[in-house]
Amino acid sequence: MTGSWASSVDAHLDWVPGGGRRGLAEAVRKAIRDGRWRAGVVVPSTRALAHDLGVARGTVTRVYADLAAEGYLVTSQGAPTRVADGGGELLVEPARIPVVGAPRWTLEPGRPDPSLFPREQWLAATKRVVQRAPHEVFDYGDPAGSAVLRETLAVYLGRSRGVRADPRRIVVCAGFTHAITVLGRVLVDLGLSSMAFEDPSYARFRDLAAGAGQRVVGVPVDGDGVRVSELDSPAVVVTPAHHFPLGVTLAPARRTALVRSGAVVVEDDYDGEFRFDRQRVGALQALAPEQVVYAGTASKTLAPSLRLAWLVLPGRLVEPVVAAVESSGARPPTVDQLVLAELISSGAYDRHVRRSRVEYRSRRDRLVAALPAGLPVSGISAGLHLVVPLSLDAEASLASVAGRHSLRVEALSPLWMDQERRRGGVVVGYGASSKAAFAGALEALLAVLRELTG
Amino acid sequence: MTGSWASSVDAHLDWVPGGGRRGLAEAVRKAIRDGRWRAGVVVPSTRALAHDLGVARGTVTRVYADLAAEGYLVTSQGAPTRVADGGGELLVEPARIPVVGAPRWTLEPGRPDPSLFPREQWLAATKRVVQRAPHEVFDYGDPAGSAVLRETLAVYLGRSRGVRADPRRIVVCAGFTHAITVLGRVLVDLGLSSMAFEDPSYARFRDLAAGAGQRVVGVPVDGDGVRVSELDSPAVVVTPAHHFPLGVTLAPARRTALVRSGAVVVEDDYDGEFRFDRQRVGALQALAPEQVVYAGTASKTLAPSLRLAWLVLPGRLVEPVVAAVESSGARPPTVDQLVLAELISSGAYDRHVRRSRVEYRSRRDRLVAALPAGLPVSGISAGLHLVVPLSLDAEASLASVAGRHSLRVEALSPLWMDQERRRGGVVVGYGASSKAAFAGALEALLAVLRELTG
Repeated sequence: MTGSWASSVDAHLDWVPGGGRRGLAEAVRKAIRDGRWRAGVVVPSTRALAHDLGVARGTVTRVYADLAAEGYLVTSQGAPTRVADGGGELLVEPARIPVVGAPRWTLEPGRPDPSLFPREQWLAATKRVVQRAPHEVFDYGDPAGSAVLRETLAVYLGRSRGVRADPRRIVVCAGFTHAITVLGRVLVDLGLSSMAFEDPSYARFRDLAAGAGQRVVGVPVDGDGVRVSELDSPAVVVTPAHHFPLGVTLAPARRTALVRSGAVVVEDDYDGEFRFDRQRVGALQALAPEQVVYAGTASKTLAPSLRLAWLVLPGRLVEPVVAAVESSGARPPTVDQLVLAELISSGAYDRHVRRSRVEYRSRRDRLVAALPAGLPVSGISAGLHLVVPLSLDAEASLASVAGRHSLRVEALSPLWMDQERRRGGVVVGYGASSKAAFAGALEALLAVLRELTG
Repeated sequence: MTGSWASSVDAHLDWVPGGGRRGLAEAVRKAIRDGRWRAGVVVPSTRALAHDLGVARGTVTRVYADLAAEGYLVTSQGAPTRVADGGGELLVEPARIPVVGAPRWTLEPGRPDPSLFPREQWLAATKRVVQRAPHEVFDYGDPAGSAVLRETLAVYLGRSRGVRADPRRIVVCAGFTHAITVLGRVLVDLGLSSMAFEDPSYARFRDLAAGAGQRVVGVPVDGDGVRVSELDSPAVVVTPAHHFPLGVTLAPARRTALVRSGAVVVEDDYDGEFRFDRQRVGALQALAPEQVVYAGTASKTLAPSLRLAWLVLPGRLVEPVVAAVESSGARPPTVDQLVLAELISSGAYDRHVRRSRVEYRSRRDRLVAALPAGLPVSGISAGLHLVVPLSLDAEASLASVAGRHSLRVEALSPLWMDQERRRGGVVVGYGASSKAAFAGALEALLAVLRELTG
């Protein structure tokens, strides 16, 4: 019963039983002419198609032979029968998705080196998870996220980032983008419909918050981080450990003032793992777990394409956030969550983070050493990016000059909301490039800077 | 440089340089007392912590020895030092996520058997993808979905479901729940803010559409499927191949009328792969690709926890839907998308679907044969569920009686929007149970039905 026909392929035919050999042949011709059976595709075995349609196997064999003679199909001894390449009268070329050419070099901020992704460790963890997981793992899961991952994160975040993390207060999201959208909605529903962002900050997150119904306002950032005294919103998103893009750390007095401001503080700890000096800054959340939403992600430590992030929430926000994740209709796959948990609890995640830190620190050092003395970089010794200041005039030519050098970088000034305050510069992401291409990317950057400031 | 310290673990300490041995010891005690360094957790190696903090290794060694003497840490020759179990004065028990007990048997509709998940094939495909994928796969990807998956789906959906699928019109979503939320928003933005659903239908999808800003209305369903003549909305969500929950197929005249109604038709082909007789119904979309949004998912064929679904869109909806996916902040991980593409193009997906079909058909046959003759089931020979009719009075006791038999099933009448039309019954999902437990679940169902109708 589960013999060879079960190992064939499914094929839909517009076919009326009783049409006989001629009707069947015409249905197959039509599927090929319409492009639904594409050139090169294996057709069902004669046995399977006969079984599926309830006709004699000989009928299918003869139809296939006729269509091969007509050039629709290609049969050869010992190989599966396929749809011919351009054999039919009106074969439809399968449509392709156009490939967009990328610049040769990239120093885009906010991206880790995809060539550092720990493929073997990810595979090994996937193998352990998929072979050992109970069947329930493949059923619908907990909308708050896998309990195993949340318990693992609670321990990890406490140990490595000083977060006061109770697994019952952790919610796993499909990336920080998903998290900020969900939080934006929840706060609107709670009557908190204005959300402050550091000015400058990453524009996409502001757009997502606005899309979620928030009125987005800016709070200026100076050398001590966000100016808490100018905060006048019931919620604020901050990057206290390492400001994006300016790279400053929130000063101790400001940390205290921020958590006492009464606002719901969303702590975007996007690259908290990548601090290269010894002044590790613990999570702000530990100061006031009922006031601060801690947000972390695997996008910088592993890969953005994993779409995995986590929130550690004040008690009162847990239920609304889980409900908002449910009504977003989206959440990360359970197996991926378990693979991350396995990587963390086996120690492979820490080892990967520490190895990556060595690589990124070395790139930062090379970058700082290579920059001309007249261009003082800003940003503490942390993260995956730094800022090279430029005049606004020079910055205006950045896109075209960088394009000529086939280099992808980001301009600084568009990250400001307040046009009066904006400053020119290049946000240089030294993570994005692969290890092998970093020297070339650095050369391209220096050439671009020479042209802009020469 | 990347020696043994790079393979240690990260640990955050509230520690001020210059505090010496005493200051460091107090910082570690505090991390343990606060529960941030949890019982049983491996602490950083002395070499790594010394390197991270910029102190002499001997200092860390002595601090660890002191804390072991105090009972905070456990050291043993040749094994890593760990935080002691209850050794500190005020050790915090790590919080756990409470486990909710599940009923012993399940015949919940809308779920495939998680024990059928093709673990080995999934792993093999993951291995091929993770070992061979270009580095870009780990970077941010295309918000419409992986080009490889979309091109693979275009061929697959054409061949197996008769869909007219151009890969440029396919958008990959994080499950059908995500897709319906995104579509709901897009249609509201286009001024189409009333969405009809079949009555009865799956309540969760209606809730998601309402959450996306749609006014949700019902259209009655009879033996020929949804009554197109009563449709009065600019958009409608239908299950034409196999109505959920009633199991009818949309009659040919109604198919034609529906695509000519002018409404945007969302074709939820949730279980189109599981048709057990020979009257395969192709996708409605092929009749009018500019009018119908075809929606498919891996939730029934593989596993709902994968959160993978796809839309084949009319040309004018492609850009708005991609933009709405972006502003949802969520999308499926790229590797998972490539694994699905690999399963489809290697033929493993078809083989799995065909094997599953044999299993589900056999369960359906066993179920129908076991039901008392007085209880005529409804629903064609397809899918993962059927309906056993009950009086509304009998249905009212379903939850409590099923609970007593430790059986999870779903009542029929709550699926209606129009209270006047609702009919009683049990929606029996014969997919949800594992193969081994199916006989027991069936026994429990028969016992429940005897009590309710006896």
